[in-house]
Amino acid sequence: MEQRVRAFAPATVSNLACAFDIVGFAVDEPGDEVEVGFAEGSGAVIGSISGDGGRLPRLATKNTATVAVNALLDHLGERRGLVIDLHKQMPLGSGLGSSAASAAAALWAANGLLGSPLDARSLLPFALAAEEAACGTGHADNAAPSLLGGMVLIRSYDPLDVIDLPYPPELYVALVTPQLEIRTGDARRLLADSVPLSKAVTQWGNVAGLIAGLHSGDYKLIGRSLVDVVIEPQRAALLPGFYRVQKAALEAGALGCSLSGSGPTLFALCRGKSCAAHVAEAMRLAFADLDTPSEARHSAINPSGARILEGRLTSEARGSSRS
Amino acid sequence: MEQRVRAFAPATVSNLACAFDIVGFAVDEPGDEVEVGFAEGSGAVIGSISGDGGRLPRLATKNTATVAVNALLDHLGERRGLVIDLHKQMPLGSGLGSSAASAAAALWAANGLLGSPLDARSLLPFALAAEEAACGTGHADNAAPSLLGGMVLIRSYDPLDVIDLPYPPELYVALVTPQLEIRTGDARRLLADSVPLSKAVTQWGNVAGLIAGLHSGDYKLIGRSLVDVVIEPQRAALLPGFYRVQKAALEAGALGCSLSGSGPTLFALCRGKSCAAHVAEAMRLAFADLDTPSEARHSAINPSGARILEGRLTSEARGSSRS
Repeated sequence: MEQRVRAFAPATVSNLACAFDIVGFAVDEPGDEVEVGFAEGSGAVIGSISGDGGRLPRLATKNTATVAVNALLDHLGERRGLVIDLHKQMPLGSGLGSSAASAAAALWAANGLLGSPLDARSLLPFALAAEEAACGTGHADNAAPSLLGGMVLIRSYDPLDVIDLPYPPELYVALVTPQLEIRTGDARRLLADSVPLSKAVTQWGNVAGLIAGLHSGDYKLIGRSLVDVVIEPQRAALLPGFYRVQKAALEAGALGCSLSGSGPTLFALCRGKSCAAHVAEAMRLAFADLDTPSEARHSAINPSGARILEGRLTSEARGSSRS
Repeated sequence: MEQRVRAFAPATVSNLACAFDIVGFAVDEPGDEVEVGFAEGSGAVIGSISGDGGRLPRLATKNTATVAVNALLDHLGERRGLVIDLHKQMPLGSGLGSSAASAAAALWAANGLLGSPLDARSLLPFALAAEEAACGTGHADNAAPSLLGGMVLIRSYDPLDVIDLPYPPELYVALVTPQLEIRTGDARRLLADSVPLSKAVTQWGNVAGLIAGLHSGDYKLIGRSLVDVVIEPQRAALLPGFYRVQKAALEAGALGCSLSGSGPTLFALCRGKSCAAHVAEAMRLAFADLDTPSEARHSAINPSGARILEGRLTSEARGSSRS
């Protein structure tokens, strides 16, 4: 039987308002599916990509899936060749961690195919290397939750220090992706190099409140801490109507609302699934009022992260599991 | 029987490394004692001050104890006169929240004398008003833990949002106060108006780690998060030998070490009382090597904050308690 492993890795919300660059979480869907099998030669190459409208690089040194897997193969001293089929199932450049999800799914599938030598946390440096190749900087706040699931704090990048955060059981997210594209590189270059001290203090007060609220399950504290006085005002300028849609989310009952990643998707944390559904629809309508079509979703926090899709797993690879 | 109430309020450690301006905690000692009784006229006046070497202002509009109590009297519409005797039992200008402790003790005593109309949390705005009079800016990270006890997050100043933080049971602090004086106003003026974005992100990663560590009781996470890349490098310049003493604390087993308030006291968080005692002595010796005499202390986190000293409480006022 041909050995192939197929894996899914979820989209992620990063730059959680005040917690820019340090907190992200995984959602149930959308996400990417990646299928990995053995091939002639050595190293990982792209076999096919679907769902990207032809926009993603096929070159192994440019695609985050192959960059990540080749870093893993180097680490393992593995000389066999791998071929990667990438099924994009989420919008590109939308602020939902598309490149990180591809890398996470590819790593998880390849690791499974190779007999699961590493656990999900140990795969993170390879996903980071891929993010660095895609965005110029390695930000783990998408890759870590896509691999690990849940709500994740990146306390430090050097050394990498990844902390699982708890979150209360009724925490849901509304996501609305308008038909606008913001390139992460552009969004990052737009940011001022420095922050006024008073705003930095306000920001870290909110970061502290957010972490305290997640730990204590205090939805209201989470809500009043989800305020970004540093990044959001700069990035909102890239997104016409941002404040009107944010206001619509809050008026519909969201705990807080900001840009996911560098946008254009807006996320809104909510207490309860029905509230999240209601908030997502309110945000979609607010964009519609601005003549901007958008796609609305809502989801629980995904606790599991990347996973093997058993249906396509061959008998040899079955049994690989996250440790 | 003459009605007089005597109260104690503890010293506090603020500017908890990365958590500049937003987290402080109370210690068991030192602290200030304040005795308040009724007097002729209206408003609060200073009767006497001991222990300050004649350095504190006697003028009711300048001393934090009277400023705080007069703000309380205004709020209550109380027209009786009060006289305040202030017994300073801690070093002034040492970074241990001396002015906040005087205000907290005076407020607690006056509130007790008046039949305890307010709880400790409701007294906080009056302590803040007094801090503003003393330092030019109202910082609640000393006043809040001195009044309330424990470890306190000031998430926001406008509106004031004070959050009790948990902390693990074996958390102790070593404190070493060298014979050097740094005026808070000077220390604050020295600070740069802005923070490089990359350092701000590092700082809020550490803030998030600190809060997560306090909540989860993870001493090691608390330790590696107690890093200040923004304020400490600027203030260390005011304190010769700072880095040598900090290094001595870490080598002696401290979880982390930085300036308390704006210094010159250094605090070091430790796991266990004996570790804190050992670290305090190591820091004192490091200052001694620099020919700087210093006073070393160690303490648990004080969970109670300001308290009535029962021994001197008269029968009429007895029974007032924090709600």
